[in-house]
Amino acid sequence: MTTTTPFRYIGKPIPKADALERVTGTARFGADLKLPGMLHGKVLRSPHPHAYIRRIDASRALALEGVKAVVTAQDLPPLEDARAAFGGELMIDLDHLRRLTIAHEKALFEGHAVAAVAATSPEIAEAALELIQVDYEVLPVVENALDAMKPDAPLLHPNLYTRTLGEKPSKPSNIATIVEVGFGDLEKAWAAADVVVEQSFETQMVHQGYLEPQACVAWVDADGRIHVWTTTQGTFNAQRMLSALLKVPLHMLNVIPAEVGGAFGGKIYVILEPLAILLSRKAGRPVKMVMDRAEVFRATGPASPAYITVKAGAKRDGTLTGLYAKIVMDAGAFPGAPVQGATWCIFAPYKAPAMKVEAYDVVTNKPRVQAYRAPGATAAAFASESTLDMLAERLGLDPLEFRLRNAAQEGDQNVTGQTYGRIGVKAILEAIRKHPHWNTPLQGKNRGRGLAMGAWMGAILTSSSQVVVNVDGTVQIVTGQVDITGTRTSMLQMVADMLQLPLDHISIRVGDTNCTPYTDLSAGSRTTFTQSAALARACQSVIAQMKAQAADALSKPDRRLTPEDIEYADGKFWVKSDPEQVLPWRQVAGLTRTRGTGPIVGTGTVTRLQPANEFSAQLCDVEVDPETGKVKILRFTAFQDAGRVINPIQVEGQMQGGAVQGIGWGLFEYYAWDKGKLRNPTLLDYREPTALDLPMIDTCIVEVPAPDGPLGVRGVGEPPIVPGPAALANAIYRAVGVRLTKLPMTPETVFWAIQEKKQAEHLQAVAGDGA
Amino acid sequence: MTTTTPFRYIGKPIPKADALERVTGTARFGADLKLPGMLHGKVLRSPHPHAYIRRIDASRALALEGVKAVVTAQDLPPLEDARAAFGGELMIDLDHLRRLTIAHEKALFEGHAVAAVAATSPEIAEAALELIQVDYEVLPVVENALDAMKPDAPLLHPNLYTRTLGEKPSKPSNIATIVEVGFGDLEKAWAAADVVVEQSFETQMVHQGYLEPQACVAWVDADGRIHVWTTTQGTFNAQRMLSALLKVPLHMLNVIPAEVGGAFGGKIYVILEPLAILLSRKAGRPVKMVMDRAEVFRATGPASPAYITVKAGAKRDGTLTGLYAKIVMDAGAFPGAPVQGATWCIFAPYKAPAMKVEAYDVVTNKPRVQAYRAPGATAAAFASESTLDMLAERLGLDPLEFRLRNAAQEGDQNVTGQTYGRIGVKAILEAIRKHPHWNTPLQGKNRGRGLAMGAWMGAILTSSSQVVVNVDGTVQIVTGQVDITGTRTSMLQMVADMLQLPLDHISIRVGDTNCTPYTDLSAGSRTTFTQSAALARACQSVIAQMKAQAADALSKPDRRLTPEDIEYADGKFWVKSDPEQVLPWRQVAGLTRTRGTGPIVGTGTVTRLQPANEFSAQLCDVEVDPETGKVKILRFTAFQDAGRVINPIQVEGQMQGGAVQGIGWGLFEYYAWDKGKLRNPTLLDYREPTALDLPMIDTCIVEVPAPDGPLGVRGVGEPPIVPGPAALANAIYRAVGVRLTKLPMTPETVFWAIQEKKQAEHLQAVAGDGA
Repeated sequence: MTTTTPFRYIGKPIPKADALERVTGTARFGADLKLPGMLHGKVLRSPHPHAYIRRIDASRALALEGVKAVVTAQDLPPLEDARAAFGGELMIDLDHLRRLTIAHEKALFEGHAVAAVAATSPEIAEAALELIQVDYEVLPVVENALDAMKPDAPLLHPNLYTRTLGEKPSKPSNIATIVEVGFGDLEKAWAAADVVVEQSFETQMVHQGYLEPQACVAWVDADGRIHVWTTTQGTFNAQRMLSALLKVPLHMLNVIPAEVGGAFGGKIYVILEPLAILLSRKAGRPVKMVMDRAEVFRATGPASPAYITVKAGAKRDGTLTGLYAKIVMDAGAFPGAPVQGATWCIFAPYKAPAMKVEAYDVVTNKPRVQAYRAPGATAAAFASESTLDMLAERLGLDPLEFRLRNAAQEGDQNVTGQTYGRIGVKAILEAIRKHPHWNTPLQGKNRGRGLAMGAWMGAILTSSSQVVVNVDGTVQIVTGQVDITGTRTSMLQMVADMLQLPLDHISIRVGDTNCTPYTDLSAGSRTTFTQSAALARACQSVIAQMKAQAADALSKPDRRLTPEDIEYADGKFWVKSDPEQVLPWRQVAGLTRTRGTGPIVGTGTVTRLQPANEFSAQLCDVEVDPETGKVKILRFTAFQDAGRVINPIQVEGQMQGGAVQGIGWGLFEYYAWDKGKLRNPTLLDYREPTALDLPMIDTCIVEVPAPDGPLGVRGVGEPPIVPGPAALANAIYRAVGVRLTKLPMTPETVFWAIQEKKQAEHLQAVAGDGA
Repeated sequence: MTTTTPFRYIGKPIPKADALERVTGTARFGADLKLPGMLHGKVLRSPHPHAYIRRIDASRALALEGVKAVVTAQDLPPLEDARAAFGGELMIDLDHLRRLTIAHEKALFEGHAVAAVAATSPEIAEAALELIQVDYEVLPVVENALDAMKPDAPLLHPNLYTRTLGEKPSKPSNIATIVEVGFGDLEKAWAAADVVVEQSFETQMVHQGYLEPQACVAWVDADGRIHVWTTTQGTFNAQRMLSALLKVPLHMLNVIPAEVGGAFGGKIYVILEPLAILLSRKAGRPVKMVMDRAEVFRATGPASPAYITVKAGAKRDGTLTGLYAKIVMDAGAFPGAPVQGATWCIFAPYKAPAMKVEAYDVVTNKPRVQAYRAPGATAAAFASESTLDMLAERLGLDPLEFRLRNAAQEGDQNVTGQTYGRIGVKAILEAIRKHPHWNTPLQGKNRGRGLAMGAWMGAILTSSSQVVVNVDGTVQIVTGQVDITGTRTSMLQMVADMLQLPLDHISIRVGDTNCTPYTDLSAGSRTTFTQSAALARACQSVIAQMKAQAADALSKPDRRLTPEDIEYADGKFWVKSDPEQVLPWRQVAGLTRTRGTGPIVGTGTVTRLQPANEFSAQLCDVEVDPETGKVKILRFTAFQDAGRVINPIQVEGQMQGGAVQGIGWGLFEYYAWDKGKLRNPTLLDYREPTALDLPMIDTCIVEVPAPDGPLGVRGVGEPPIVPGPAALANAIYRAVGVRLTKLPMTPETVFWAIQEKKQAEHLQAVAGDGA
């Protein structure tokens, strides 16, 4: 897209397009729809983390007045039929998706759906759940991935065989996949190193913590068309999953996006929707389903817990010789831990002659994990950035200079083998070096400054939008791209500049799957990046069509003009050879109503772009109270390469929100397990950081244009969560000399680490005395 | 569109796509939407047909608990601002549209909106209406067009000047427009004729009689975007009218179509919508408005009453020498009577060396008329087809042979100057000649057979649709074309054959103005005709894009294929030069998800087509009871040229429904006026024909392909209403010898006509006796 004027809107802090609706409480979220005759659905969930389901008797529930339908796994079409009808592939094996949606012969985690009821009120539906009799045969529980990998561990799936590059194993296992990537000779690397550090780390299952619970309304109409209103990150993804689960062709299945009240990766899979559809089909009425908070904790998809061991070697001058990691990720009850994300990200900011990652995707009797903002990367960075900090310290090097010396740049290789295009690692580190935070010495007792980097590969996938010119010259963007981060506003800004029209002439509409061209989900920091390219194509097409209309209108009997004869800028079309012949945009648009080109619709799609890899860093100062172990954050600055900023307040908002979640991982949040049962499924017991826990989060944006796409945009949503836990751990180490290797770093764990350190020092002193 | 296979669906009696929803009562009509916090709006209407509004005091209404807003004409933006902002033109002058929407300084008909109230319940809103004080100054009423044309008639509009081809008149008048068209020398025509007949006719104001009243919900959201759910024939037309009335750009105004419970031309203008929007904007909440039946009669737009004089001359052999008509049509309170339709249609089936029509559009203190199925044509045909029947009788010629002798065909000229392309007049008349109805003699006393023809020019305008291929190969038609006659089904059939795919792979979605490209309203028998061309273009584009995807997928490293290398038929793509290389449609569609072309969206638009003129004829046998005047229809056959039939049951349904409405005009329906006040505003007193009044209506379709469009389709909705009243009058004449020239031909009027005839015969006999 070339524009003859400088950008008027791109780069400016434009308020959100839907701001007033949000603040006045009139935006319609997943639970806000009511339809006439609507029923309410509730889910019966397994109280056991692992149990055979021997029998389900719903007769008493069905006899309750007001109960209109009960469904179980029996109501899904047979797997092989469904597989044959669907044909395509999903993000998860279809058999697993079906079993995840509703337990078949086995419940595999506490909260696993076993049956669902639709009734005339939520209260009746709840009461009916208690009338459903389920005979369970309780099985031994595997609560964590390391246990699950043991040869004698109870098996979750009798037909799960470890997928590796080699042959199919002889017997099933809880290890779904082993990924091995890397290059170079690690043995040589360790030999060449002056210092080698090896350390193991552990992170917890944590929840995305979106405020809006999963909610949907499904309606199977009399002609068999299915309408689903739902809070989702991807209507087309949901549509395809539902098509596969229910054996319904896509044209009979319309997924209508609600406003999304937080998602962070947790609203990608369908979950209530298939049950609501099955209930609606049986009952012949619309069915609404809304989770309560305990269901959100127990039965949606939190983040994968991880066990990561990192080994890193460097020469005395700080040059890395080799990097190695073993990553074991707990997927919960079905395969799908984010081993790819963890693998790509763990060493992404750095170059080294040898790198290797071994990663394990392991099933346990816990809720099946889903994406959580930069999935895999936060745990990975906690391990790698802590290890590198240890290494720098052992080498006596400044942690910033150490990172700068090893910073990856264009042409370097990621451990996965990807060769980087233009990336911003060095630019970020140099921005830190110049930043007042870095240059202000931190003084005082029990205080420390931590630095860590983060990375995200940046998702691509397919993105489409349509740009439609109304006959009064105003413009609509019609897209299936769900807005979870303010992308409606950034898309408006881009289109206003691409079309060189005033921003208030343009609206955006996020449409349903029946009225928008296929577009992939809003996730992985892909939306603004890929849509910048899709919108550019759509706008090019719009301008070409408008030029054709202008050429037609400006033609004279003795001279037919073609679009090539027409110039466009700033809302005006004119004849190149005679600039006095001008038509304003609005007038050309008006002509399309009744003649010439007809309505102007530009469809823009991208299916492939070069990756826009994203990097971030965070710098934080903490003070640790050695008496209580409490960590107070004194100062926090988030750095990030945004490629090109479309809307600085939105980018800052992402950086701050992500930082807060990283702090949550670092200091507060965890699922408290007791033999596979969750002990803290409330927002009171599951401790998310509040405003009182947080410092002001400063932001510093650098702009290293992405190698592909018309504007150089990079995604910004994922990277800011990544460095936080490591930055905190590094700061705590520098404050009180303890190296914490397990998240969260609660006062209790910090306190005991300090005690241990004291004990060790005491023992050492005693031993020294004794020597 | 070329297809290699014969049609599988076009021409077949496919059931309606939305049949089950309709019969199970789950289709959602205008009044079926409920939104949270929704208010209910009611309209205060003038009790006077003509009165100055001196003052409106709503303070007591606003003080009533539950009342949230009151609006009057003051709430519209100033006219000149609105006109400047809108720019374009509408079907009516903007000043008139505003005054029609809500009375300004004058109420111009009984039922004219004066104010509107929104309250928390319909009952409170009703109660509030009674608390609004309006000071009226009652003015003299002009009830019919002939009176209104008199020089001393009270004027409705102080600034209405007759529009003719000449200069602006010196003073205002109730005559809005005089149209004069024609060719040839009428004086010569009358001189050349052996017989000349001249007769005057009168038709009444009648209502379209749709069962669903006008209904809408409007919501102005916090960000100022306007959402309107409404029962309308044209969402884009409604959107433009609202944009002009309210000075809101189109991108901020989304019109969402409800299912339409009957329209017949009466749901083209916005009526409640602007009031609902103004109320919603003031109240900050959604507002629903639904008319009651009396409001539907008094305050929507019924059909124009007409006074028509026809003069026709012919030679003894039956050859017409000239045709002349003066048409005076009553527009109600604002200009807009269908003089164009009446003019085009009145002599359309015939050729003659001289033809002329003079037509007057006249305002009176009645509701402003709207289109009603073939607007203007039914009244026109009543006059012309009665006159021609009289002429044939005077010439002693068979009415069918007389018409055949003068039948227009390709190359002949309409009175408006249009030269016909291929038309079906002769084909219809020949079908009658061969039809068992025509060939079965009618026996018995007081029985007669009447024949009449009807015509409709066929509307064109702009039509658009999108055809979208889902990634599983199923297909959606996304269109803004409202379905009032079963066009969803006919569009599905056409696309299935155009894409050579099974019908059940395709769905259709009628979308709102924010998610579909501009398309004009569904009216004037234009929908299936113009959409056949728009869909053909969309399907061509889809197949071209799919070929590009197939070419990409079938390419080999040593041979890149282009779309031109690919052939398509019956759901398969193959390489022309190597037919073994085949990809099924579904697989090609699946590839578009992640590569190559990306999602397949074909947009098809037509802005200009050659007219597909439509003709019909009806033949009916009646028996008249001379004691009561009651007319019993013994047999009724409707003939029509449908061009190419897409769905015969739908075409028959249109023919039968139209015939019933024509019978209603002919025998039953009229607005009973009393000094501008309507005395029969209920379905009990306003007599529509019921099943007990009706015979079985046989149908006979002929197919003379239209000259333009890919399939030869002609519209079918309008012509079947047109000939009925004339056919009935002609049959009554032949049954009992009385020529009725005023509609409706109720038992009372037939009885008195018979009495008059007897009296005349008696007087003649007496005179004869006396001679």
